[in-house]
Amino acid sequence: MAVGPDTLPTLHPVAGFKIGIASAGIKKPGRRDVVVMEFPESASVAGVFTKNAFCAAPVHLAKANMATGQVRYLVTNTGNANAGTGEQGMADAKAVCAELAQRAGIAATQVMPYSTGVIGEPLPVDKIVGALDAALADLKEDNWLDAAWGIMTTDTRAKAASEQIDVDGKTITITGISKGAGMIMPNMATMLGYVATDAEIDQVLLQSWMSAATERSFNRITVDGDTSTNDSCTLVATGASGVRIEADSAAATAFVEAFNRIMLQLAQLIVRDGEGATKFVEIRVDSAETSKEALDVAYTIAHSPLVKTALFASDPNWGRILACVGRAGIENLDLDALQIYLGDVCIVEKGGRAASYTEEQGQAVMNEEDILIHVVLNRGSASETVWTTDLSKEYVSINADYRS
Amino acid sequence: MAVGPDTLPTLHPVAGFKIGIASAGIKKPGRRDVVVMEFPESASVAGVFTKNAFCAAPVHLAKANMATGQVRYLVTNTGNANAGTGEQGMADAKAVCAELAQRAGIAATQVMPYSTGVIGEPLPVDKIVGALDAALADLKEDNWLDAAWGIMTTDTRAKAASEQIDVDGKTITITGISKGAGMIMPNMATMLGYVATDAEIDQVLLQSWMSAATERSFNRITVDGDTSTNDSCTLVATGASGVRIEADSAAATAFVEAFNRIMLQLAQLIVRDGEGATKFVEIRVDSAETSKEALDVAYTIAHSPLVKTALFASDPNWGRILACVGRAGIENLDLDALQIYLGDVCIVEKGGRAASYTEEQGQAVMNEEDILIHVVLNRGSASETVWTTDLSKEYVSINADYRS
Repeated sequence: MAVGPDTLPTLHPVAGFKIGIASAGIKKPGRRDVVVMEFPESASVAGVFTKNAFCAAPVHLAKANMATGQVRYLVTNTGNANAGTGEQGMADAKAVCAELAQRAGIAATQVMPYSTGVIGEPLPVDKIVGALDAALADLKEDNWLDAAWGIMTTDTRAKAASEQIDVDGKTITITGISKGAGMIMPNMATMLGYVATDAEIDQVLLQSWMSAATERSFNRITVDGDTSTNDSCTLVATGASGVRIEADSAAATAFVEAFNRIMLQLAQLIVRDGEGATKFVEIRVDSAETSKEALDVAYTIAHSPLVKTALFASDPNWGRILACVGRAGIENLDLDALQIYLGDVCIVEKGGRAASYTEEQGQAVMNEEDILIHVVLNRGSASETVWTTDLSKEYVSINADYRS
Repeated sequence: MAVGPDTLPTLHPVAGFKIGIASAGIKKPGRRDVVVMEFPESASVAGVFTKNAFCAAPVHLAKANMATGQVRYLVTNTGNANAGTGEQGMADAKAVCAELAQRAGIAATQVMPYSTGVIGEPLPVDKIVGALDAALADLKEDNWLDAAWGIMTTDTRAKAASEQIDVDGKTITITGISKGAGMIMPNMATMLGYVATDAEIDQVLLQSWMSAATERSFNRITVDGDTSTNDSCTLVATGASGVRIEADSAAATAFVEAFNRIMLQLAQLIVRDGEGATKFVEIRVDSAETSKEALDVAYTIAHSPLVKTALFASDPNWGRILACVGRAGIENLDLDALQIYLGDVCIVEKGGRAASYTEEQGQAVMNEEDILIHVVLNRGSASETVWTTDLSKEYVSINADYRS
C-alpha cells in the first residue's frame, strides 16, 4: 500500500553529475543494485548522517571521506546494510571504495560508500566489485530514474523530485532521489537521499543549507519512530552551470526555497510509501513556547499506536489525541486554552469536546487519505510540523513476516 | 488473547475493608458496574494518580478528598471515564460522592470517586446513584473476586493478588485487584488498582511505600506507551488486625516485601492481559550509569514497533534490538563494551552479532510465551526492569475496530 498517486515529475539531468547503475546480484540475480555517482573535482559535497550510535561501517567511512573535501564518487549498494558487522564491515567498505578508486584513477578516500539492506550479514564485496566496471560504463547525466529504482529495497515506489529555477537569466537544476519505507525496515537499514545541483556553492554554505533543510524534512518524518543505523542524505553542487550562488543573495533565497521543496518532497514520498500506510498524516503544532515543546507534542501524537490505529480505522477518536497532548510532558499546560483541530474542524476546546463538534464533521475529515491534525497550544510563537502514517494490520504483517 | 495461565490465588478478606457491587446498567443492562468500598474512620489511605495533564474529573476530586485524611468510601463505576467532560464532569463526580455520603451519613469529601470507560461522554449520574443502595446493601469483606470483575472494562481476565504474612505471631493480610489492558484503551481511560491491608500504618509511611512500590510496578509496565487520563491506584490500611507497623522495623521490611510483590503481580497481570498480547516480555537493563539511562534504553526497546512485531513473529531479530539501544540517546555509548542477551543467549557483543550466537539458540528463546531481553551496558551500577507485550495484528484490530 502507498498513499496518493504514484507519479513522478520530469527528472532534469544535473550538468556535471553522472550516474551509472549495474547489477551485482546481491539478493536477486539481475537486480540493478549498485549505483555509482560521479562529479568533478570542483564540486562541493554536503551530507547528513544517522544519529544512531550503532551507525554502520559505510556511514563512518562516508563521513570521514566527506571531511577531506576531495570526494569525486558516491557508491551505493542495496541488499546488504553492512551494519552490525564490526571490524570486517569497515574493511569491506574500504575495499569497495579502493576498487572503485583504482578504476577511476583517484584515491580511495575520494569515494563515499552507502549500503542499505539486511543488517548483520557480511558485505558481498566481490559481487559489488564485480559490478563496478558496468556501473562506470553506464555513467550518464540522464540516469536519475534508474538510480531511484536502483537504490530501493522494500520500497513499493521510486521516489524523486526535480526543479529548475532561474538565476540571473540562467537556469539552475536541482534533482534528487530518496528511498525508505520505515525508519528502519524489518532487518533493513533504511533511509537514503541524494540531491545534486549544477549551481556552484561553497561547501560550508552548502552544508548549512543541507542541515537546515534536513531539519524541516527528513528529520520531521516518522513511520514507526525507529531510527536507522544507515540513514544518510548527500547533496552535491557540481558548479557545471557556471552560476555561482553567494550567501545572503537573492539567488541564495531562490535556491534555498527550491532546495527545501525538493527535500520536503523526497521526505514526504517516504512517508507516503510507509510500511502498510493507508493515510498520509500531517501533525502541526502551533503557538508553543519553544520548538522543542511543539515537537514533543507532535511526536507524542505521531508515535501513539492508539492514534495511529484510529487513523487506520478512519475513526475521529479525539479522546486519543487529547490524551497524547496531555502526556507530552508540557509544564503548566493550560488545558482550557488549547484547541485541537482535525483538518479545519475544532474537536477539542475548553478542556473537552468542542461544543460545535459533530461526529459527522470529524468523520468527513478522517475519510480522506491526507489528514491534518492541528494542535494550537496558545502559549507562545513556536510552530513545528511532522508527517507520519497510520498503523495498519499490513504494517504488522510486513514487519512480523519479513524474515519468515 | 492473554499470556500465561488464567488462575487467581485465594483472595483473603481484609478485616475492616468491605466491598459492595451492584448493577447500574451503564453500558449493558445487568452488568455489575458499580463498586463501593468501605473502611473505618481510623484507616489510612494512600494513592497514586495519572501524570496525564488531561486527568479526568474523578482523579482531581479523589486527590483532593484523599488530602483531607478523612476518607471512608471509594466508589468506582465502569463504562464511562468522566474524562474530557469539562466543568459538568466535575459537578457529576461531586454529585455521585454527595449521594453516597448522604446514604452513609458522612461528608461528601469523605468519598473518593473512580471512573473508567469511554472518554468524552457525560457521566450517567442517575444510573450510578440508582445502584448505590444495592451496592451498600452488598457490603462484605469476602467480595474481592466480584469486585475484580466489577471494575473490568475490555479486560479479558479478572486481576487480583493476595498474601498473608506473620508479624509478631499475628497474621496480616494484603489483598488487591487491578484492571487495564492497554495504557489507554481505544476510547477508554484505563488502569485502576485497589489494595487493602488490615495492618495499622501511619498515612505518611503508607504513602511512601505506595509511591515506591508504584515506581517498581505500575510505572514499569507499558503496552503501547500511552498514559491514561484516569489511572490511579489506592492503598488502604484499615488497622483492624490490631497489628501496628512502625517505620524501620522488621515488620515493616516484611510488609513492604509482601506489598511490593502484590503490586508487581497486579501490574504484570495487566501486561499479560495486554491488548492482543501473545508474549509477556521482560526488558532488563543492567550496569547503566544512571537509572534514567537504563529506563531510556528499556523503554526505547519496549516501545519499538519493530521489536514488538518481531516478538509477535517469534523472530530473534537482534538487529532491531541493537538499533534501539543505539538510538536511545545514551551519551558516549561504548558499543564494543555492551552485550545484549535473549534469555541467557548472548546475541550482541563487540558491536555486532556475538560470535557464539546461532539462530537456533535465539529461536528457542523467542518460541516461549515469556521472553527476557537483557541489555548489559557495562557503564555503571544502575539497573531497571520494565514489562511489556508484543504488537500483534489483533492489537490493531482491537484498537481500529473498537468504535465501529
